[in-house]
Amino acid sequence: MPDPSLPWTPDFDVYPIEVRLAGAKTDGEAVVLTWEDGRISRHHAFCLRENSPDPETIHPLSREMALNPLDLPEDLQPQSAAIEETGALKVVWSHGGHVSRYHPGWLRAHAWFEDEGHALPGVTLWAAASFLEPPSFHGNGLSDGDEVFGNWLAALAEFGIARIEGLPCEDGVLERVVTRIGPIRETNFGRTYTLFIKDDPNSNAFTSEALLQHMDIPTRECPHGLQFFFCRENTTTGGEGVFVDGYRIAEDLREEEPEHFEALTGLVWEFNNRAKDCDYRAHGAIIALDDLGAVSGIRFTPWLRAPLKAPVSEQARGYLSARAFMRRAQDPAYQLIVPYRPGDLVGFDNRRVLHGRRAYDAEGGTRHIEGVYADRDDLYSRLRTLQREKRRACEAL
Amino acid sequence: MPDPSLPWTPDFDVYPIEVRLAGAKTDGEAVVLTWEDGRISRHHAFCLRENSPDPETIHPLSREMALNPLDLPEDLQPQSAAIEETGALKVVWSHGGHVSRYHPGWLRAHAWFEDEGHALPGVTLWAAASFLEPPSFHGNGLSDGDEVFGNWLAALAEFGIARIEGLPCEDGVLERVVTRIGPIRETNFGRTYTLFIKDDPNSNAFTSEALLQHMDIPTRECPHGLQFFFCRENTTTGGEGVFVDGYRIAEDLREEEPEHFEALTGLVWEFNNRAKDCDYRAHGAIIALDDLGAVSGIRFTPWLRAPLKAPVSEQARGYLSARAFMRRAQDPAYQLIVPYRPGDLVGFDNRRVLHGRRAYDAEGGTRHIEGVYADRDDLYSRLRTLQREKRRACEAL
Repeated sequence: MPDPSLPWTPDFDVYPIEVRLAGAKTDGEAVVLTWEDGRISRHHAFCLRENSPDPETIHPLSREMALNPLDLPEDLQPQSAAIEETGALKVVWSHGGHVSRYHPGWLRAHAWFEDEGHALPGVTLWAAASFLEPPSFHGNGLSDGDEVFGNWLAALAEFGIARIEGLPCEDGVLERVVTRIGPIRETNFGRTYTLFIKDDPNSNAFTSEALLQHMDIPTRECPHGLQFFFCRENTTTGGEGVFVDGYRIAEDLREEEPEHFEALTGLVWEFNNRAKDCDYRAHGAIIALDDLGAVSGIRFTPWLRAPLKAPVSEQARGYLSARAFMRRAQDPAYQLIVPYRPGDLVGFDNRRVLHGRRAYDAEGGTRHIEGVYADRDDLYSRLRTLQREKRRACEAL
Repeated sequence: MPDPSLPWTPDFDVYPIEVRLAGAKTDGEAVVLTWEDGRISRHHAFCLRENSPDPETIHPLSREMALNPLDLPEDLQPQSAAIEETGALKVVWSHGGHVSRYHPGWLRAHAWFEDEGHALPGVTLWAAASFLEPPSFHGNGLSDGDEVFGNWLAALAEFGIARIEGLPCEDGVLERVVTRIGPIRETNFGRTYTLFIKDDPNSNAFTSEALLQHMDIPTRECPHGLQFFFCRENTTTGGEGVFVDGYRIAEDLREEEPEHFEALTGLVWEFNNRAKDCDYRAHGAIIALDDLGAVSGIRFTPWLRAPLKAPVSEQARGYLSARAFMRRAQDPAYQLIVPYRPGDLVGFDNRRVLHGRRAYDAEGGTRHIEGVYADRDDLYSRLRTLQREKRRACEAL
C-alpha cells in the first residue's frame, strides 16, 4: 500500500494503515465495517459517496470535491460492500452503477467509535514552577533545515510559548521567520509595529509603564492567534515580559472556583478600543469552550473591557469572576518572567498565553522591540505539512 | 453639554444625551438611577468605578484603563450618589474618598433595562426578488469625499453585498479602495490573488468550471469576513457571479424546516483543504448563532467539507440538513446574478453571502478578476468612525 492501480491521490499516505478491515456489509443507508481489532464503524451513504476518491467526485488536481452533492439522489444506498484483495473497501451504489474504492487508512481515520470524540491538539499546561525559561531554540539552527524550525513550532503549539535565541538583529528578520509559518495578520497598528514610547499613545503598550497580563486585540470577532516579539536592542532596566498560561488558569478555576468558571465561560463581555481614529468592538466570554467543553481561547484585556450591560446581579457575578481570573494572572505562582535580550524572538499564542511587562526606566537606555501577528491556522497547517514531509522522508529511507 | 469643566474626554459626544437623569441613590453594591422617562437602571460598584472618567482610572491619551482593577477593595461600595447641576452623576466611593462624575449619555448607553438585549447591527435579508442588481455606487464619486465611500460601506453591512462601478482598471486600485476600510487579510493564496486558469490548480476557483454557492476559506477558525472582486477585463462569455444571502436561507430554514435548522446550527463539521503545500482544518456549525440566537455566520463550502465523523444517525441528520441548505442555495429564487464588467468592484460578507459562478468559455476571451480579503471588524470600526465624524460635522453647523 498504496497500490498504484488504485485511484488514490498520493497524499493518502497521511492515513497509515494501522488496522485492516475484517468485514463489510450494507445496512440500508450505511456501510457497516468490522475491523481486525474487533471495532465496528458505520458510514452513511452520502458521506462515503461524496468522498469517493475518483476523478469524477474529487478533482484530481485541486483535490477538492468536483461533484454537486445535490446530483446524488436523495434515496442513494450502498448496494453492496466488500473488501478487495488489496485491502480496499469496494462499494457499488444503487444508482448509476457507480463503483467506489476506499483506502482503509482513510476509512479508519474518519470512523466514529462510541468511546472517542474529536481529537484535540496536544496541549501541556504550565505555571511558574514548570520551567525557568520558555522552551528555547538556537537561531543559528534555523538555517540548517526545518528541524529546529519544526521543533520551535511544535513547542509553540504545545506550550503556547516558545523562543528562538541569537537571531541577527537586522531589518526583515522577524518578518522572514514569521512568514515561514504563514501570512502576517495586519491590524490598524500596521503590518509590524515597534514598541516605543509615543507622545500621543493610542494604546497603553506605547508607554513605559507596567502592563498587566493581557492579550492583544480582544476587540475583534476572532482575535489574532499568534504574536511574536523580536528584541533588536535593549539597554534599559526592567521591562521583562510576564507570561501566564491562561488555559492553566482556566482549568484551575474550573476545579477550584467552579462558580467563577461558570460566570467566566457563560457571561458575554464587550471589549472595545475607541481611539481617535478607530472604534473596534467585539463580544465574547472571557473563557471560550469548544463544543466538547475544552478551553479553546481566552479573551481578556483588563483595560479594554467595556462595562457589562446586564442585570445588576449578573454585573456582580461578572466583575467578581473577572477579579478571580485576574487574581491568578497577577499571582507569581503562574508567571514566567522573560527578559528581552537582543536577538530573542518570543512567539506565543495570543488567545492562550497572556502577556504583560514590568515597568522600565525609559531614560536609562534604548529599547527596540518589534512585534507582529499571525494566526493559529497557519501554525497548525505548517506543523501538519512538516509532519507529512517527515513521514515521507522516513519511509523513503 | 459637554461642560468643559467636566473631566470627560471629547469623544463622549458619541453618547448624545437623549434622556436626562431624574434621581440617583445607592443600594449597597450598586447605584440605582431613575431616568426622566421613568425607567430604572442599576450599575454595579465595580462597573462604575472602573469606568470613572478621571485620568487616574482612564489613561487620558490612550483612553484605555490605567487602573489595576485588583487595587480596588473587594468590598467597594458607592457611599453616595447624586445628580449635579450639570446633569452629571456624582458618586463618592467608600474607600479613599475617590469621587467620580459620569456623563448621563454614557450611563444611558451602558444601562441595562429588562426589555432590551444587546443591540444587533441592522441587517436586511434579501432574495432574488429583492433587487435586480446589488446596491451600487459610482466609482467617480469615491474621490469626492467620504459620502459615497460611507454609503457603499453601509450597504455592505446591511445587505452583505455592495458594488462600486466604473473604477479605473489599473494596478493598485483594488488595494487602495480596500485598505481605506482596514488592513488586507492575507491567506496562503497571497496578499491579493487573480482568478485565472491554473494548470495545477490548488483550488477549484482556478478553473473555468461553474462553482456552486460557497464561501472562501471555511478552513480557518474565523474565516475572513469580507471579500472583494475587482474586474479589470472580461471578454469571455458566461462566468457571472451567483450570490445568495445565507442569512435569509438560514431564517427561512428556521421557519420552514426547523429540524434541518437545528441540525445545521448544532452539528459541528470539519472543513479542510489538503493541497500539496498546506493542510488547513477548522470546525464549526454550518449556521452559527450568537449568544442571543441570532445568525452570526455561515460556514459552508460543499467541496471542502470533511466527512462527518459521528454516529450514523448523526451522519444522516447532518447530510440531509446540508442538502436542505444547498437546495435553497442552488434555487434561483434566492440568487442574485451579477455580471463582471470592467471597472466593477463587488464587496461581500464572506460569512453571510455565499458566492458562486456560472461556467465560462475559457477560449472565448480574457477574464481578469482580482480578489482580496479583509475582516468585518474593520468595516464596522470604519462605519462607526464615519458616523462619529458625520455627527460632529452636523453639530458644528
